[in-house]
Amino acid sequence: MMSTLPLELVQTPCLLLDESRMLRNIARVTQHSEQLGVPLRPHVKTPKCAEIVRLMVNAPDRRITVSTLAEAEFFARLDYQNVLLTTPLAPGKIARVAALQRSGVELIGVVDNMAAALALEQAAQGAGCGFSLLVEINVDDFRGGVSPESPDFDDLLSKLLGSTTLRFKGLLFYAGSSKHTRSESERKRIAERYVQCARTVLTRLKDRGIECPIRSFGSTSVFMAADSLEVFTEHRGGIYAFQDLFQAGLGWCTADDIALTVAVTIIGHDLRRKRLFTDGGALALSLDRSTAGTPFDAKYGRIVDARSGVPVQDLWVSEVYQEHGIVTSASGGPIDFAVLPIGHVLAVQVNHADTTAAAHDRYHLVRGGVVVDVWQRVNGW
Amino acid sequence: MMSTLPLELVQTPCLLLDESRMLRNIARVTQHSEQLGVPLRPHVKTPKCAEIVRLMVNAPDRRITVSTLAEAEFFARLDYQNVLLTTPLAPGKIARVAALQRSGVELIGVVDNMAAALALEQAAQGAGCGFSLLVEINVDDFRGGVSPESPDFDDLLSKLLGSTTLRFKGLLFYAGSSKHTRSESERKRIAERYVQCARTVLTRLKDRGIECPIRSFGSTSVFMAADSLEVFTEHRGGIYAFQDLFQAGLGWCTADDIALTVAVTIIGHDLRRKRLFTDGGALALSLDRSTAGTPFDAKYGRIVDARSGVPVQDLWVSEVYQEHGIVTSASGGPIDFAVLPIGHVLAVQVNHADTTAAAHDRYHLVRGGVVVDVWQRVNGW
Repeated sequence: MMSTLPLELVQTPCLLLDESRMLRNIARVTQHSEQLGVPLRPHVKTPKCAEIVRLMVNAPDRRITVSTLAEAEFFARLDYQNVLLTTPLAPGKIARVAALQRSGVELIGVVDNMAAALALEQAAQGAGCGFSLLVEINVDDFRGGVSPESPDFDDLLSKLLGSTTLRFKGLLFYAGSSKHTRSESERKRIAERYVQCARTVLTRLKDRGIECPIRSFGSTSVFMAADSLEVFTEHRGGIYAFQDLFQAGLGWCTADDIALTVAVTIIGHDLRRKRLFTDGGALALSLDRSTAGTPFDAKYGRIVDARSGVPVQDLWVSEVYQEHGIVTSASGGPIDFAVLPIGHVLAVQVNHADTTAAAHDRYHLVRGGVVVDVWQRVNGW
Repeated sequence: MMSTLPLELVQTPCLLLDESRMLRNIARVTQHSEQLGVPLRPHVKTPKCAEIVRLMVNAPDRRITVSTLAEAEFFARLDYQNVLLTTPLAPGKIARVAALQRSGVELIGVVDNMAAALALEQAAQGAGCGFSLLVEINVDDFRGGVSPESPDFDDLLSKLLGSTTLRFKGLLFYAGSSKHTRSESERKRIAERYVQCARTVLTRLKDRGIECPIRSFGSTSVFMAADSLEVFTEHRGGIYAFQDLFQAGLGWCTADDIALTVAVTIIGHDLRRKRLFTDGGALALSLDRSTAGTPFDAKYGRIVDARSGVPVQDLWVSEVYQEHGIVTSASGGPIDFAVLPIGHVLAVQVNHADTTAAAHDRYHLVRGGVVVDVWQRVNGW
């Protein structure tokens, strides 16, 4: 805790987190989770922050998803003991898994290929520990996963079921192809495709007498479009707490829902070339251009009023250097410099909350236009 | 200091810094600086590390360049007292400048527009301190600066010379347009253009009896191409200590000079789609695609052997997710998986050393294929 600080006095660049927008975003997804009867396993990789994850968890076992062991270790110290690691584990890190297990954590990993299963089995044997795994299912050739129709799937399953160190715990689905959707109806169809695929695999497992306690689904835009996902036992998601311009572009939230922004200060006026300079550059905003090539290209971010979150003069960050952000009008037209003096603090809505937040070690929690608290992040690996 | 660690046992992803390549890179630029008689003011923004900057400084006054006040404050504690801040100062940070001055540091800032000069003057008056400034000169419309032919330049100069709190200390030049060059002869021409511009401005200042003790030049690729830069009193540069694929693409160093890589571990084999998965994704490598659109497009990085730095099977990081890197052959052809087992540690040469390094809090110093030390970075603002 700290004494409060007016927004105008923050040392920029830094992350601002609008409390009311964040609470509204979390409430919306939590409500849908309860309506569907599919509990959340919040993905810590977005907030990487104790105070935020506490607000997101809604299952009694306080299950969470992590992308790094550093996150798992941090949250283990806060008594989160049901942890899914969605990045396949490097065998050289098994000692850290064993240490987590000794502290009471069940760390569940993912696997989608035989070579990795064999390497993990050998590592676990060497470390004298077991390791629970979900098999990642490839539904539509997005990123990783094994196709459930392929002999590879059966081989992998047999390997896990026959192992004394590896434990088959279920299936992992990631509907990342939702990134390319433009409408809720498309996302409904993705949900149906994933449900159908999961049902088929489950039936086959059941026929063989194989228990499959965890069926984990990911992609919040699809989750929110779905009317029923009862084949899944949980939903993984994280970005919904913050939202960003990419998610707003998908259309399942609005730009006004964006809770996370980067505070920047105006440090230069370029009257001739109609540009503002700010101290929010490539490091503070990240170089994430997720919206590039979409109908909602947001350049390096949109300028909004730091207090209200309302867009300012249709200004966007059009160019970045390491610590310089160059701001221009979308139309290429003039800027009203008089209301944007040197020293004025603005906020930037960004393409992708995850990568921008990763450049910072803390959040400035904003309530009623004032920074009321500073929350730490757990970065690194 | 720490006990040594074989490369194969590092916890990936992490930064590897090859000591012999780094020393060779630093020696080459230092030697050229001595031949030209233009001392270095190393740009701390690349390494952000005490041990590395110590090797780069070659002026008796130990002058350095910083991009953030966090860097200035860190190096002030190590007795670097001659510090140039190339990001225009936000007036709200003047108290930190005053504190640096009280600790014995001369912090020199930059300015290129009247609005900023007025705001800085007011802030300095409020803080009861002075503030030394260089005027940034616009030579070829790259990034910022004021054109020396414009009345704005004379107005700005008069403002600084007439101020009781601001002090005119000289001129700053940044030949960032070198990023678009493809040959040494082009860079020689840029050097000549900057020399010519600086000479003209200096003559005008001299005619008016205005002293201009600092004429600071930046862009190491141009510096290395130049036969004479005697009009300048110093050169700012940082990336040369590490090098990267963008610099190698410019042709003034080779890919074998690259001292900084990211160690990653193979965590998956995708035989069907001829892909490797590693644990080095968007956060560990950064999303920097500086080489995009150039004849030397390096995707998200090139895979090399972690010990030798030699390219491996023409493999490149073709796709990244937050913590997943997807590696494919440049030809789209097969990968020899047998020599790339799960758990194998590889290294990635990156587009742009600055942005990649910024995702990490430390370097693993490698000597003879072994990690012999861990050096900390000063990130943030």
